[in-house]
Amino acid sequence: MTLEEDINQTNQYYLDKNIAIIHKKPTPIQVVNVRYPRRSAAVITEGYFRQASTTDYNGLYKAKHIDFEAKETNHKTSFPLANFHDHQIQHIQSIVDHGGISFIIMRFKAYDETYLLPSLHLLSFWKAQESGGRKSIPYQFIKEKGHLIPFSYQARVDYLKIVDQIYF
Amino acid sequence: MTLEEDINQTNQYYLDKNIAIIHKKPTPIQVVNVRYPRRSAAVITEGYFRQASTTDYNGLYKAKHIDFEAKETNHKTSFPLANFHDHQIQHIQSIVDHGGISFIIMRFKAYDETYLLPSLHLLSFWKAQESGGRKSIPYQFIKEKGHLIPFSYQARVDYLKIVDQIYF
Repeated sequence: MTLEEDINQTNQYYLDKNIAIIHKKPTPIQVVNVRYPRRSAAVITEGYFRQASTTDYNGLYKAKHIDFEAKETNHKTSFPLANFHDHQIQHIQSIVDHGGISFIIMRFKAYDETYLLPSLHLLSFWKAQESGGRKSIPYQFIKEKGHLIPFSYQARVDYLKIVDQIYF
Repeated sequence: MTLEEDINQTNQYYLDKNIAIIHKKPTPIQVVNVRYPRRSAAVITEGYFRQASTTDYNGLYKAKHIDFEAKETNHKTSFPLANFHDHQIQHIQSIVDHGGISFIIMRFKAYDETYLLPSLHLLSFWKAQESGGRKSIPYQFIKEKGHLIPFSYQARVDYLKIVDQIYF
């Protein structure tokens, strides 16, 4: 299972149990041509993937706005900042500034470990990078400042358990 | 200008002025076939529009979760409930239950009037319809219980002014 599949399953569980309303945003697609066959659905015959200017997931939990991005890496000693782009970082900074709960879910595939890292850490590494600092977040840092999300069967990436501990 | 264009411009204004972070969700598209030409972007050659299971807009304002749907109608005396579908109504009910700010922006094109109607009213009309009630919300009701959104040049549908009045 990919991290995305695990999170989608988890969000569906949260929805079904009426715990939270969190969705993945659809991938933005620029539709250029559409064909309308008789008696059947419109077919997009030319379209292009566009870069998202926000994070992939957002929603509502205990009356709070939740916003996060999820990324997995094959790297073993650090998490490359190249996983993010400028627009996303700006968006994350805005969410923090406006009082939303903002974090990154990161999976190190080599260890099968999934962490929740509050966005403040990502933002400070990003800032440091812009003034010549390192281009990745060390695994050791994430292990210390992040929160390991335990695997569970009902909600495979039960990140709201961690959100409860650190934000409520 | 369509209502959607007006709201997109308004949301961009809110973003630029650092007032709120509210986006339209991309239309969900099921991608069936993709071609990868050399040296250029991937092209979607077969895709289908899917029905959204949520509302079109959400975001963050003054630390609160905002969620709304926008619809315009040519009707003059009422707003047809057929503009909504079951999944959206369930989603709206959940947002209300979990403490989000939820409303509908409705435009009567014949009068060039745009209203903000708190979702509770939509939900009660929907419930009534299910037990045999009317299939639309009367214009007169919306005029009385909704809030006229004044046109402004900077933010063409300045709905957060109304949100300030009724939710804060």
